[in-house]
Amino acid sequence: MPDASPDTPAVTPIEVRDEDLDVIRYDDDGLVAAIVQDVDTRAVLMLAWMNAETLRMSLEQGRTVFWSRSRQEVWRKGDTSGDRQFIRSAHYDCDGDALLFLVEQEGNGACHTGSYTCWFRSFGSDEESTVRPGPV
Amino acid sequence: MPDASPDTPAVTPIEVRDEDLDVIRYDDDGLVAAIVQDVDTRAVLMLAWMNAETLRMSLEQGRTVFWSRSRQEVWRKGDTSGDRQFIRSAHYDCDGDALLFLVEQEGNGACHTGSYTCWFRSFGSDEESTVRPGPV
Repeated sequence: MPDASPDTPAVTPIEVRDEDLDVIRYDDDGLVAAIVQDVDTRAVLMLAWMNAETLRMSLEQGRTVFWSRSRQEVWRKGDTSGDRQFIRSAHYDCDGDALLFLVEQEGNGACHTGSYTCWFRSFGSDEESTVRPGPV
Repeated sequence: MPDASPDTPAVTPIEVRDEDLDVIRYDDDGLVAAIVQDVDTRAVLMLAWMNAETLRMSLEQGRTVFWSRSRQEVWRKGDTSGDRQFIRSAHYDCDGDALLFLVEQEGNGACHTGSYTCWFRSFGSDEESTVRPGPV
């Protein structure tokens, strides 16, 4: 359970509706791509994968829960690192095969390297600054 | 060829470096996920796929070029619709298996439905407004 300290962001579950879930198309491995974006800065933080179970968990718990392809297990983001992601809105695309979560990112960031975003490297440049915009 | 009207955004090729390309990991189909984000509004516009050839074309031409999985052919975004995407920066993630392009989006938007973004639908809500933020 999340602790109840004043600094803990509010958990806001999202209603699970069949009309939404019925649109989602999973690949041959039963997975759908999930993009995570910072609701405050609008920076794109990471891309991971969900199956039907972890998508439902994400909506019900108001936190991102992925399926780890490398470990082949449920991966509730932040349970180990502390860098939890609290979902503020969740969206599915025109084809139903890609998800977008706008989150309040806890801690230093989303990347397992310790970086704020997983996209800290640029083609053709050694600069990192273009990835992270200031707050909107 | 793009026309030369004053309204045509500038094309800015990105240097193709082996040190960047060597990091990219393609899946069993030879593809890597490519997220496209509006450089002005920071809205996430679409998710598509690139192979090694179309990634190189994108960098060299300064426009997004994808591999269409449904049509199994090179798909230079906007050649048919007119809604071209001019790349302002290009990034690869920590694992090298997901790309992020910040683009100047031409026309009405990125989605083949005519919407600005492919994520015009929300889980648990019939509202669309949370996807598109104002300009930063």
